[in-house]
Amino acid sequence: MRIDVLTLFPEMFEGVFGSSILGKAKERGIVSLNTVNFRDFALNKHNTVDDTPYGGGGGMVLKPEPIFGAVEHVTGATTNEGERKAAGEKSPRVILMCPQGTPFTQSKALELAEESHLIFICGHYEGYDERIREFLVTDELSIGDYVLTGGELPAMVVIDAVVRLLPGVLGNELSAVTDSFSEGLLEYPHYTRPAEFRGWKVPDVLLSGHHAEIEKWRRMQSLLRTFARRPDLLESADLTAAERRWLDEERRGPKDGGP
Amino acid sequence: MRIDVLTLFPEMFEGVFGSSILGKAKERGIVSLNTVNFRDFALNKHNTVDDTPYGGGGGMVLKPEPIFGAVEHVTGATTNEGERKAAGEKSPRVILMCPQGTPFTQSKALELAEESHLIFICGHYEGYDERIREFLVTDELSIGDYVLTGGELPAMVVIDAVVRLLPGVLGNELSAVTDSFSEGLLEYPHYTRPAEFRGWKVPDVLLSGHHAEIEKWRRMQSLLRTFARRPDLLESADLTAAERRWLDEERRGPKDGGP
Repeated sequence: MRIDVLTLFPEMFEGVFGSSILGKAKERGIVSLNTVNFRDFALNKHNTVDDTPYGGGGGMVLKPEPIFGAVEHVTGATTNEGERKAAGEKSPRVILMCPQGTPFTQSKALELAEESHLIFICGHYEGYDERIREFLVTDELSIGDYVLTGGELPAMVVIDAVVRLLPGVLGNELSAVTDSFSEGLLEYPHYTRPAEFRGWKVPDVLLSGHHAEIEKWRRMQSLLRTFARRPDLLESADLTAAERRWLDEERRGPKDGGP
Repeated sequence: MRIDVLTLFPEMFEGVFGSSILGKAKERGIVSLNTVNFRDFALNKHNTVDDTPYGGGGGMVLKPEPIFGAVEHVTGATTNEGERKAAGEKSPRVILMCPQGTPFTQSKALELAEESHLIFICGHYEGYDERIREFLVTDELSIGDYVLTGGELPAMVVIDAVVRLLPGVLGNELSAVTDSFSEGLLEYPHYTRPAEFRGWKVPDVLLSGHHAEIEKWRRMQSLLRTFARRPDLLESADLTAAERRWLDEERRGPKDGGP
């Protein structure tokens, strides 16, 4: 997979692209991660990439020319559209990170992990000229309903979520505990040594060696935690009829026992 | 404001803490941004920070001692709890980034921007010993329903959203166009020069100089975009009765005119 990030702040990506999982995926040749400063594609002598909005109002708006130029530079760097189609390759996905985008989810990460070329466009406290959205971009994504100073951190988030799904990236580092959402429920509580820390003890059941009891306790904890924190997830979660009945009773007031 | 980030990958933060808005906020002395490698607080000679889970299962779990040690190191670095209360200062917020957390939103960013000391705990493809959650952490936050390799990028996202709200950080760089969600609606389309780019023209109304017409067009575009992409936002948005009626008609099939 090839990933290009268009940004005015390429130095923001150095630490993240060089460390941990992304750094290793790059070293192993599983992904190529590049940053492109789209200021290099500005057409005027002052290298201006933004301008005031038509119709007035505050703020600046990113001009179309530098963004179109930079995207065409990186797509031209692979193959042209005709050759790509002849070779049966997919067109690159051109992804704009913006608060107006479709909410990014794990299923979108799985979808993007099937692609061979992703291009991210990151603006920074400016708006985008609408023609970039209309005629260049294939996807607009938002990572959540909060305001950030730019698209750089959202792009890093999407890249991290996608690259960890590529074959060969996680290997033995893949741990069950990171995969909340895989069953549609939140994770149960984890404990490790010491068995007692400052007087706080690990629940007896986990030290019992009784696997069926441990499984039952963990499932109940997952259900209770999801019920308490993210009841919205329960609707689409994979629950048994007995578990649904038990949670309905919990809703009317907690009782003893379990599902 | 003082921000400490506990992580095994402090180098991931260099590019982001050094650039753009966060770099400037740091230079101006508005925020102090520090990373602490909690491996330095491991108690055994191999500097182990994680161990296998009690009760079996895959993955590793972060041990309580290094995290408690690192948090106490950075809280002790300010004042002790008694002195802090005597001086009328707030206790630090100890924030765990994890998929099980409360969804992070703009109102949480506003709340955290009122604090004087934030401590972020970032795990990395491990779980956390539950005693960290129960007896140390004040907030558990999730930036969205997707799986990432660690808490580092989520911490950067929260820090960026909070620091940009601190007085003196954005200054003139604050632009209206970044503030989607401020009225509960998505932004209207923006355009800048050139008026024609590759045959694609800026809408006539924006070139008309007729301010009332421009305002009306922008409001309608905001409503339509929110309606098309994020209808969930409309419920709590600040709409007039006429606008709600018009959107109800749109729902039954688009018509001409506007609200």
